[in-house]
Parts: sequence; C-alpha cells; structure tokens
Amino acid sequence: MTKRYRGYEAFRIVSEVSRIISSSLDLNKVGDLVLRESMKALDADHTSLFLLDESSSHLILTRAKGFSEDEMDNIKLLGSWEIINDQLVKKKKSLIVNDVHKNPIFKKKRVYFSKEKFPVNSFLAVPLAKDDKIIGALIVSNRNRPGHLFTKEDEKLLRALSNHIAIALLNAKLYQDLKNLFISTVKSLVKAVDAKDRYTSGHSERVMKYSLAIGKELGLDEETLEILKLSSLLHDVGKIGIKESILAKPAKLLGYERSQMNRHPAIGVGIVEGIENSHKIIRGILEHHERFDGKGYPNHLKGLAISLEGRIIAVADTFDALTTDRPYQKGYSKEEALLEIKKESFTQFDPKVIKAFLKSFSKHPDIWNT
Amino acid sequence: MTKRYRGYEAFRIVSEVSRIISSSLDLNKVGDLVLRESMKALDADHTSLFLLDESSSHLILTRAKGFSEDEMDNIKLLGSWEIINDQLVKKKKSLIVNDVHKNPIFKKKRVYFSKEKFPVNSFLAVPLAKDDKIIGALIVSNRNRPGHLFTKEDEKLLRALSNHIAIALLNAKLYQDLKNLFISTVKSLVKAVDAKDRYTSGHSERVMKYSLAIGKELGLDEETLEILKLSSLLHDVGKIGIKESILAKPAKLLGYERSQMNRHPAIGVGIVEGIENSHKIIRGILEHHERFDGKGYPNHLKGLAISLEGRIIAVADTFDALTTDRPYQKGYSKEEALLEIKKESFTQFDPKVIKAFLKSFSKHPDIWNT
Repeated sequence: MTKRYRGYEAFRIVSEVSRIISSSLDLNKVGDLVLRESMKALDADHTSLFLLDESSSHLILTRAKGFSEDEMDNIKLLGSWEIINDQLVKKKKSLIVNDVHKNPIFKKKRVYFSKEKFPVNSFLAVPLAKDDKIIGALIVSNRNRPGHLFTKEDEKLLRALSNHIAIALLNAKLYQDLKNLFISTVKSLVKAVDAKDRYTSGHSERVMKYSLAIGKELGLDEETLEILKLSSLLHDVGKIGIKESILAKPAKLLGYERSQMNRHPAIGVGIVEGIENSHKIIRGILEHHERFDGKGYPNHLKGLAISLEGRIIAVADTFDALTTDRPYQKGYSKEEALLEIKKESFTQFDPKVIKAFLKSFSKHPDIWNT
Repeated sequence: MTKRYRGYEAFRIVSEVSRIISSSLDLNKVGDLVLRESMKALDADHTSLFLLDESSSHLILTRAKGFSEDEMDNIKLLGSWEIINDQLVKKKKSLIVNDVHKNPIFKKKRVYFSKEKFPVNSFLAVPLAKDDKIIGALIVSNRNRPGHLFTKEDEKLLRALSNHIAIALLNAKLYQDLKNLFISTVKSLVKAVDAKDRYTSGHSERVMKYSLAIGKELGLDEETLEILKLSSLLHDVGKIGIKESILAKPAKLLGYERSQMNRHPAIGVGIVEGIENSHKIIRGILEHHERFDGKGYPNHLKGLAISLEGRIIAVADTFDALTTDRPYQKGYSKEEALLEIKKESFTQFDPKVIKAFLKSFSKHPDIWNT
C-alpha cells in the first residue's frame, strides 16, 4: 500500500531525522544513519548513497543498505547511468521510476536488469545539494512488492530530507578532513624529528600503530584511543632537544650521554605543554620509559602508578626498537622480539598490556609485520 | 497579539531553522544564527544564549541580541538566578514568566528590575541539552508590548528548536576544539624547531601572526588565510634538517655554511609533503626567500611568479628578523625595520604586499608590537 503523509507528518519526520543524522560528526556513523533513517522514513527495501566525484562528474556508490553483496555490484553501476546523471546532477531534479523492468527507458539496459541480479522494481532518486551545489545522490528503492510504488509525496519528503542529509554529510566530511590534516601534519613533523636519529626512521608512526592496536585489544573507548594516538605519536618528540652528537652517535652511548638522552621524555613534556588540553597526553610521553617494577625513568613509578598510556607505549616502543637494526645490534625477528617482551612481564611491562599485545599479534599479524 | 502555531507550522519552522543553524561549523556564526532564528521564530524582541560552566554549574551569557550594551550587564545576571538555574539546569524544564515586573517571585530581585535597566517584561527560557545532558539555556524575551506574552505553544516550539540548537552548537564546538588542538600542536612542535636556532625563539609564531595581519589587509578569503596560517607557521620547519653547528652558530655564516642553511625551504617542502593536501602550503614554504627582483633563492622566481603566500611570508619573516637581536647585530626598532622594508619595494618585496603591511602596521600597532 502506498504511504500518504499529511504536511504535518512530513515535517515531523524531517525534523526528527535531521536531529538524528546531525547528532554525530563521524562520517561513517552519519552515513549509516542516513541510510537507516531514509529507508525507515520512506518505508523502502533499500537505500543507496552516492557521492559526486568532481573530477569525473560520476556518482560513486559510497554505501548501501538492504542489498546482498552480489546485488551491490550492480547497484554500483546506477551511478554511471546517463539518465540518473542527467536528471540528478545536470538538471538537479528528482527521478521516480516505478516498474523498472517494464520501463522502456531501461529496457535497453537489460543486461543489468535481470530480476535476479537487479532486485530493484521501483526507485526514487534525489540529488543531494548544498547552496545549489550537487554533492551526491540518495536513492531509495523497493523489491517487487505489489503496489509498493513511489509517489509525488514520497518525492517531496525525500527532497526535504535531502537538504538536511547533504548538510550532515558535509559537516562530517569537514570534520574528517580537519582530522586528517591534523594527524598528517603531526606525523610529518614527528618524522622529521625521527630523521635526526639515524636509526629510528619511521619509529614514532610505527609506535603509534602498535599502541593503538594494543589499546583496541584492551577495549579502550574512542576518546582514550585518540589520546593514546597523539601521545604515542609524540612520545619521542623530546629528542629534538637532544644534541645531534648524542642522538646520531653510531655506537652505544656512554654514561653521560645516556643520562642526557634519558632526558627526552621530560623535554617532550616541555614541548607539548602548549597543546590544548595537554594534560591528557603528557603522561604517555613522560612515562613511556618507566618500568612495571619501578626501575625505569624518569620518576621510578611502579605498577599501576604508571599511566595506562605509558604502559602501552612502553611495550610498543620496545617492540619497534627490538625489531629495528641498530649499528651495534642486528634487529630481532618479530617472533624473537615477542619472546623477549614476554620474558619481561611484571619486570619491565604490565602483564595485562602484554596479554593484549600477544592477542593483537596473533589476531592481526599484518599490523605487526611492517 | 499572541502567535499561534498549528502543528504543521511548528514542524515547518523547526525543520527550516535546523537546516539553517547546522549549515556551518563556525562557532561564532552558529551562535549568531541561533539568536537570529530563534528571535524570528518566536517573534521576540531579544534572545540570549547561555552556556553551562561545568565547574561552577552557572549559566554564562555567551551572546545576546536585541539589548543595548547597558542592558546586557543586567541580562548577564539572569544566568545566576536561582529560579532559572533550578528550573532549567536541575529540573531540565522550561520557564515562562509573563509580566516580570509584577511577578511576586521576582519582586525581591527588584534591584535588577527597574524597567529602565531590565527591559524584559516577559520571557521564555528553555534548557539546551543533548542526550539528557544540559549544555546551556536559551531565553527569548520581550519588552513591554501590550498583550505580547509567551504561551505554552511558544514553549513547545522553542523546546523542539532547542534540541537542534544544542546539536548545532556542540558540533561547532567539537570542530573548534579540533582546530585549537591542531594549531596548538603545530605551534608547539614548530617552537621546538625554533629553539634549536638560538636566536629565533618564537620566530615562526610571530611570522604567522604578521602574515595573517597582512593577508587580512589584502582581503584574502577564509580558506586562503587558513593556507597562509599553516604555511607561515611551517615556513622554517626545514631548519630541523640543518646541522646544529650551522643553525646555532653564534656568528655570521661562512659561504659553505650559508649555502647549507639556504637549503631549509626545500628541506621544509620535503617534510610537509606527507600533509593532507600539502600542495596548498608548499609554495609559501618553498618561496619565502625568493625576491621580487628574481635575486632570491632557491629558484630565482621573479615578481608575481612567486606565490602570494611566499611574497607575504617574505615581508613578515624579514620584519621579525630585523627586529630580533642577533649575536652580530642588535635588532632594529619597529619603525626602523618598517623603513628598511619600505626601501626594498620592487627589489626584495612585492609593493602591493608592502602597502598592506604598512596599512596593517598603522591600523593595528598592537599586532606588530610584540
């Protein structure tokens, strides 16, 4: 049966859906909410979200809901159909097609339209736009349900929704872009610091990757993972304050040199102090050379007195140091390094962190293999 | 006359307002839109937006519309009134008060309520909340207009709006926070690079400030200013690749040392290449030592072949270098530096950039005085 919306009901839906989809700036989450809410609002069998690739002016399928994997391959092709592109991207209009398999316009596309491979019997497609600029398209569609067709009222509702959807997607995209800019900038700068130390090229980025893998295995929440990400990436930033003659010395450090070098966690804290909310990342940086038995530096903290970030970065840092070639020592294999670290449970490392490290190592060997 | 909304009209307003206020992630702009749109929707004389300070649980006036400056001082106090705090923050309910000056609850607060000083005759206050967590309050209010009172229907409308307003404000706040984290992190890292050069402490941050001042005087748009901000902040980042013995040499550099030092723009480009969309900031970094007459380095670019960012940073960089004490040269006064730079119009610098520099210098002496 075809749904009917009175004006009242339509605006209630738009207002409610817009609140739900704008409640996050996480691009994946917003995308999922858009699919779920538009499918629900239109009582449809599937939804597909396409984003416009500006260089090719093609609509690229970003995500869809309600299709099997095989079917998805054919849905992808929708974005390159001339009639969709012409109507939505060029004319900025909607398109309703009921009874696709009998529609003369689509008959010639028969190859895509065997009912098994293309399970869409009727669809409603609307452009997504902000300030008259097309950014993509949203298509709701139905399988062959008797009488289940799309109406002008459905179109009006989806067009009203589409304005809110475009804004929610663009906001999430802006946030994602800024996040990427931030992390890629910090990575670049940290890489330059690593480069001063002849033997730790790419070290900080790997330690970040390992720390996050352990953190995820420990089930840390998103916010704690963000803090771990930044503090592990910056754990060695204090090395920028160490003399080149010590930092790049192609031999084992002497006593005095070692004590100079050991100042890098504290120097790192001095550097990051100006960062917004720096207290969140300071402990990971300061405490990554503390030991679980209290014999580490700089503050000889013991056990759980060491921050979780410090305990995680310590394992990640050691794993990378052990598996990297040094002038005075050939790097261990991944497996040898793992055994070395395991031996230091309770002495150097927190056994709980080691357990998570071992789990991650066996579950995601790709992460630990670079 | 009291306004009436049918359900239809109310949802139309909520849907429209939510689209408008969520169309930006700029916290100031969203704040302004919230005031404007809620005032319009409720046909009110003023609106005030309060945000909850979590440490004190006080509502702090963030911005308001419709009041004179004198009146604002008294409106601020609204946030600390017990009845507002109790009803909105504790009970999470709305509050309608019509005929404030006659209301017994408010009589004892008479000091704030002389009609000249407190121009509010009736108001409607709603909490702003997301997921049941109060983040602030919105108050629409009227001067003494006969019969212009707030109704239950107004309350319903503003409460519906308040859900969207809270989300829009929180999203903009998240974006602003990430921006602050990003810039403060880059500043901290750049400061650490500056610190390797004994005589340029704080240099990069000042060059950023000067560059932005010139850019604003040139009327650059927001996006170009963001690019200028990042490239000026990072213009000397390549110095991290220069040997300490050269970088911190307490005397004038010899020929070979100078040619090593002059590699820093190119080294800087190598460092920032991994940054998302790095092509946008590369030219400012690479070309900040080019000269308008083509006698600069590294590529001897001439005139407008040098990027605008490069031409702006060149002036900002020179101004800071001239006004900073060096071991071999006492820093110039601001005015002496200005004259030196003016002399180099067409030779070292773009005259158009110099003109903007001179304008900014006389209009905003505070910027150029630190």
